Amino acid sequence: MRETEAGDRLVASMALVVQKYGGSSVADAHSVKRVAKRIAEAKRAGNDVVVVVSAMGDTTDELLDLAQQITPLPPQRELDILLTAGERISMALLAMAINNLGVKAKSFTGQQAGVITDAVHGRARIVDVVPHRIRETIEKGQVAIVAGFQGVTTETNDVTTLGRGGSDTTAVALAAGLGADVCEIYTDVDGVFTADPRIVPAARKIDRVTYEEMLELAASGAKVLALRSVEYARRYGVPVHVRSSFSAASGTLVTAAEAAHTPVPGVIVTAPQEDAAVEAPIISGVAHDRSESKITVVGVPDVPGTAARIFEVVAGAGANIDMIVQNVSAAATGLTDISFTLPDGDGPGTMAALAGVQAEIGFASLQYDDQIGKLSLVGAGMRSHPGVSARLFGALRDAGINIEMISTSEIRISVVTREDSLDDAVRAVHSAFGLDTTDGEAVVYAGTGR
Amino acid sequence: MRETEAGDRLVASMALVVQKYGGSSVADAHSVKRVAKRIAEAKRAGNDVVVVVSAMGDTTDELLDLAQQITPLPPQRELDILLTAGERISMALLAMAINNLGVKAKSFTGQQAGVITDAVHGRARIVDVVPHRIRETIEKGQVAIVAGFQGVTTETNDVTTLGRGGSDTTAVALAAGLGADVCEIYTDVDGVFTADPRIVPAARKIDRVTYEEMLELAASGAKVLALRSVEYARRYGVPVHVRSSFSAASGTLVTAAEAAHTPVPGVIVTAPQEDAAVEAPIISGVAHDRSESKITVVGVPDVPGTAARIFEVVAGAGANIDMIVQNVSAAATGLTDISFTLPDGDGPGTMAALAGVQAEIGFASLQYDDQIGKLSLVGAGMRSHPGVSARLFGALRDAGINIEMISTSEIRISVVTREDSLDDAVRAVHSAFGLDTTDGEAVVYAGTGR
Repeated sequence: MRETEAGDRLVASMALVVQKYGGSSVADAHSVKRVAKRIAEAKRAGNDVVVVVSAMGDTTDELLDLAQQITPLPPQRELDILLTAGERISMALLAMAINNLGVKAKSFTGQQAGVITDAVHGRARIVDVVPHRIRETIEKGQVAIVAGFQGVTTETNDVTTLGRGGSDTTAVALAAGLGADVCEIYTDVDGVFTADPRIVPAARKIDRVTYEEMLELAASGAKVLALRSVEYARRYGVPVHVRSSFSAASGTLVTAAEAAHTPVPGVIVTAPQEDAAVEAPIISGVAHDRSESKITVVGVPDVPGTAARIFEVVAGAGANIDMIVQNVSAAATGLTDISFTLPDGDGPGTMAALAGVQAEIGFASLQYDDQIGKLSLVGAGMRSHPGVSARLFGALRDAGINIEMISTSEIRISVVTREDSLDDAVRAVHSAFGLDTTDGEAVVYAGTGR
Repeated sequence: MRETEAGDRLVASMALVVQKYGGSSVADAHSVKRVAKRIAEAKRAGNDVVVVVSAMGDTTDELLDLAQQITPLPPQRELDILLTAGERISMALLAMAINNLGVKAKSFTGQQAGVITDAVHGRARIVDVVPHRIRETIEKGQVAIVAGFQGVTTETNDVTTLGRGGSDTTAVALAAGLGADVCEIYTDVDGVFTADPRIVPAARKIDRVTYEEMLELAASGAKVLALRSVEYARRYGVPVHVRSSFSAASGTLVTAAEAAHTPVPGVIVTAPQEDAAVEAPIISGVAHDRSESKITVVGVPDVPGTAARIFEVVAGAGANIDMIVQNVSAAATGLTDISFTLPDGDGPGTMAALAGVQAEIGFASLQYDDQIGKLSLVGAGMRSHPGVSARLFGALRDAGINIEMISTSEIRISVVTREDSLDDAVRAVHSAFGLDTTDGEAVVYAGTGR
């Protein structure tokens, strides 16, 4: 954020702002025009504006469906070319709509915007951002529209995609590359909530959250921000403002803890929450996740190296494992059980890979369970407050909910329950930590999960 | 075309073939798979195959409609980016479908294929073809799929489009750049016909036609090949084979007159037509066009420079004029009338431009007539046979059809009639020149006009 000659800081003006609009914000021509109006206003208020846009509405799913009609296993390179057509459409339409409002705008593909990635088609990682043309465009006083989700690999000059949620990462990476004052992620919810309002009607919007807490929330199932974009924002210190494209209200600001008092354009932070930090643990919220399964390897010989070999095989199958629990081995048999959770989609491949080494490792059997739910309590205050886990377990006990697995980090406690108990668990914990809205404020938009 | 070790020429094998498939050939997943099968067969027969593909079915019109929903006057640069999404989708799907048949294929955008154009968005002209990646791909034994209709301008590194019918031009330009043995244009008709079979059920498919005749046919309303692609083919001597994607039969071969006896892969030329050339004028066919209008400038002072000034104004309005007729000036008044035809779409702008200079030029009034039709008889033999025009005018007289304007070239005679007499005129002329099918063969596909 720049200062005026008089030295007064102007909120939401005279800044370099990167705005990202998701597919639901540009679902049809009408929405595109609405978003264009918002962008033109930001530009007319004196900001330099760079916009990252996703494909319209269900375009990506429709293109995936077309590919499935052709072949169940399309080559990833071709799938990437296919999917990037979606952002090409939305970015061109958005640029047209902005020009139509009398504000000059130009659209750029990931390649033209200088988003350089590795060559891993389908889930490429950004290795560099060289936004010459974007800088040139904003220096001319024009709005630059950039296709999210896509980049180019300099090895082969081929088009790549960043995987689901990739547009968030594009926006943060561009904000970092351009030295933007803030990266605004526009979505169809008001911000990050203390729980999914569809499950907990009394859930509250969180005004501020640290990168670390947001990482834990995103990793624990809150879908409002893609995990990788938060990692990127943290690494480069990019302030991220998650807000609704349907309202002018501030949303949730994601920053480093030490930046809590630095003003960010467009964000008005209310005082009460800041004061609260002094006296009590701040619980950011309760996240939940139904998208994981549990695999149990039964009757594993309890000898050194066996667990390592099992997770070598699991890694080889490309699975991202989350929680791991190993039982104490029964002295009589020298056998133990190892359970771990992983995304549903990684289940079949991992089961097949493990079955292939049953003889070599010598375990008794494999169990697969996709009826689990995971609840995570996230908050910076909990490390210094040992009472937090006791209160969590107590709340679940009082609600009659059985805990199957537990894992913790410095700012998170996660428990695995039966999937059909998960909603009750979220409500019980949200209430036990005093997160329910007390001022009777209506929650308009649905949740952290989309 | 290469020869085998034994020196025998193999028809449709061991050649470098560029195939172009239009939107109706890849309208849905089912059609894409059908086309993929055809491409895989050509590859397995031993050919090197490069494929140029248009957007699926009505995709381009749907994208144009989306743009219209945003703004009536979208910036051409953004419109080009938008429209090129269509070929990006079809080329990726086609590459997937071919891979699925066990034949390796890779898709390339116009930029990746090295199609360099000038910077005139919306109707860019190809200035160079640098197909390094395409050559590399076919040398690896893979099929290269290239997005038609699009290119890149090196001045700004922006995406351009070649205008309607641009995919034909992409195919011919690539064939020229790669030194291909033949450029096959696949369409939903069996080839070029002696007239539109929807108007003349007895119309016959033409086996062979020269570039010059094809140019006249294309310019006179035959829509099966884009005019610019024929110009390009003629300049670089690329044999073009127009054929149906629904049948294995030969279609119409377009070559230079002197190349009439050079074998082209995949084309079997029947002898009778070759012999006929010796004895009688070869009439290629009867083309028609309803898409033009006539403007008449009434009461023009017959002084030097006036006509030049009128057509200066017309050119300034961006109109492509076709036929021009100037009446003999009436001696008493010193005034004359000038009529010319132009595409319907250019009418309003040209009328406005002329109205603006009425005082300066001093003409009496302007007349606008969009109810005209143009019939063109095209054939190499007609220059040496003065009886051709006499027979044409006689046929129209016998059918009671009035001729309003006449223009001729070495291999074409065009007449303007009332639009509602045009079908009768086409039938009368087709019959008068003995073009009606005599063997009672059924015509399966509809016409030269789409």
